[in-house]
Amino acid sequence: MADQHARPGEDKRPTEIPVIRWEEPPEGPVLILLDQTRLPTEEVELVCTDASALVEAIRSLAVRGAPVLGIAGAYGVALAAARGFDVDEAAQALVDARPTAVNLSVGVDRALTAYRAALAVSGDPTVATAAALDAARALHQEDARASARMAAHGLALLDELLPGGGHRVLTHCNSGALVSGGEGTAFAVALAAHRAGQLRRLWVDETRPLLQGARLTAYEAARSGMAYTLLTDNAAGSLFAAGEVDAVLIGADRIAADGSVANKVGSYPLAVLARYHHVPFIVVAPLTTVDPATPDGASIEVEQRPGYEVTEFSVPQVPVAGPGGGVPVAPLGTQAYNPAFDITPPELVTAIVTEEGTVSPVTAESLARLYAKSERQPAP
Amino acid sequence: MADQHARPGEDKRPTEIPVIRWEEPPEGPVLILLDQTRLPTEEVELVCTDASALVEAIRSLAVRGAPVLGIAGAYGVALAAARGFDVDEAAQALVDARPTAVNLSVGVDRALTAYRAALAVSGDPTVATAAALDAARALHQEDARASARMAAHGLALLDELLPGGGHRVLTHCNSGALVSGGEGTAFAVALAAHRAGQLRRLWVDETRPLLQGARLTAYEAARSGMAYTLLTDNAAGSLFAAGEVDAVLIGADRIAADGSVANKVGSYPLAVLARYHHVPFIVVAPLTTVDPATPDGASIEVEQRPGYEVTEFSVPQVPVAGPGGGVPVAPLGTQAYNPAFDITPPELVTAIVTEEGTVSPVTAESLARLYAKSERQPAP
Repeated sequence: MADQHARPGEDKRPTEIPVIRWEEPPEGPVLILLDQTRLPTEEVELVCTDASALVEAIRSLAVRGAPVLGIAGAYGVALAAARGFDVDEAAQALVDARPTAVNLSVGVDRALTAYRAALAVSGDPTVATAAALDAARALHQEDARASARMAAHGLALLDELLPGGGHRVLTHCNSGALVSGGEGTAFAVALAAHRAGQLRRLWVDETRPLLQGARLTAYEAARSGMAYTLLTDNAAGSLFAAGEVDAVLIGADRIAADGSVANKVGSYPLAVLARYHHVPFIVVAPLTTVDPATPDGASIEVEQRPGYEVTEFSVPQVPVAGPGGGVPVAPLGTQAYNPAFDITPPELVTAIVTEEGTVSPVTAESLARLYAKSERQPAP
Repeated sequence: MADQHARPGEDKRPTEIPVIRWEEPPEGPVLILLDQTRLPTEEVELVCTDASALVEAIRSLAVRGAPVLGIAGAYGVALAAARGFDVDEAAQALVDARPTAVNLSVGVDRALTAYRAALAVSGDPTVATAAALDAARALHQEDARASARMAAHGLALLDELLPGGGHRVLTHCNSGALVSGGEGTAFAVALAAHRAGQLRRLWVDETRPLLQGARLTAYEAARSGMAYTLLTDNAAGSLFAAGEVDAVLIGADRIAADGSVANKVGSYPLAVLARYHHVPFIVVAPLTTVDPATPDGASIEVEQRPGYEVTEFSVPQVPVAGPGGGVPVAPLGTQAYNPAFDITPPELVTAIVTEEGTVSPVTAESLARLYAKSERQPAP
């Protein structure tokens, strides 16, 4: 079950927003999420008391973004264990909640493996639960450290590609503190550039249909004091044509072994525009996003989301609702094509920045080398 | 002044919707517009009793689309004359209402020239008013005929480029009966293909920020019985990548002498995607859209529209409103880049289809030849 309560008017900086946290009140352990569907107008927390509430929160995008989905998945396993539910069943339901983000299943597996190992050794579910929770907490902390390292590698890459500074960076969807145990992926790089006095402007794609750019990235940019400007996704072409974009920085939901990048729908058209205008297209993601088991872009399952996300506009304030709970913006009965992600082939990706370093040019070989290096030297 | 009244539940086919009409009730002549901002949920008419109401209707996009703006501009001059206002002043206000669409100024000029000529000859404002109204009506009828001819030329081009039929056509914004004295421009070609049994699917870009695709093109497609699917603008890339788009068909707001095409923002990214995927990118527009006085794309003034069109979502049903009258979808204070149009250079345009024939490849010379031919042989 999930419960909601508002946090009235606290004005915290983005890195201080508790995007996800584990608490143990007397009624029993809970996982508390910042409900991202209510931003930027309301900061509302969602309290999950079991894994099925978390599954629903993941499906509804109350929590979203590849790295944090991994953390949420790991905590979800711990929550199921702590609340006495069937842990294997809960783990499977969590993995199935969103098929494209590989981090989710990686996080779930990590906590589940810790749980099973501890159970096998001790035979005590309480010990196993503690092991799952430790695994989730470790992942959470590692992700924060990975964010900082991605930001440093990304900033170094920007300085190398664009000597002289004054970067005008275009980003899509949301990849900041809201998706991460730390400051995020692509957004963390822009934030590092901003702090170094190197960011002239962040161009923020609104990112239809769910407006993660307008709602979330603009929210994070505003709180960080960046110079930022919002635009409709289809206005990016005009910016490229006017020479107003120095680099594109995006996150990733899954990276195949060949370097194909699945990210929020609209990333691929930006990659094509960037190539056409000779602008670097940079993907920033932790190594957990790389999935060696997925050979190429064609093998990535792309989640198709409900058409009403396109045919209706959801605003909590509106009592008049269509079949999907929003205000209809298209004739009733209109069918919509609504893939959540698209696939950018490696030849359009200038570089992939990870916490272990940068891969450029992006090939199966260069990616495999970095991945193997990280396997030998796991993140601290 | 403008007044509104709803037309309850009349279920007319799109070609029968009176997008614009002149009436002469006892209270004096009026120009009646179908308020396109209220579609698809409501069919509401807007009654303009003077040119300033029409200027406001043009600015608010209650009437929009290059060809019908020309017709509206011509009727607007007649309305100012019939109501005893300063005709020159009204004409200038109409031309200034939207700077990018050349058809608007062409239509205004045509009625104004007729008015002045008749006034010079007769010295009688009533005669001059009748001349302006005749000019507007003639333009209206010519535009209907031009639509039919563009549709025929466009269908022939599709058959030539895509032998075998079963076209899957992507379109952007709205270019059907709602923009025209007839059945429109790009949409009229798709409609002709549909009637010929050659249209497998119309992919409809929703066209942010004002959703003309979702609201208007989907409305026209549904009423025409086409197989159509709506998508967010940024999902078009996935369709191209999947080989699901055989041709792009769009209208134009202004075509420069060199063949550069100004059209709804988001057209240029489609042109780049089409080129990258070797898909024909076809512009359909009447010759009045070609402006020989504008040498190239850089000379086209692109209208910048208010940021609140992006930072807020306007739904008439919502009482909670931000500074722009809509529901905020971005943090308060967010600035937005909101160009209404973008420019596609001629090298990315496969063909321009006009009522006088098709230009391909698109060059200043080929366009000038067609234009000169039409000057010698004005449309019947």
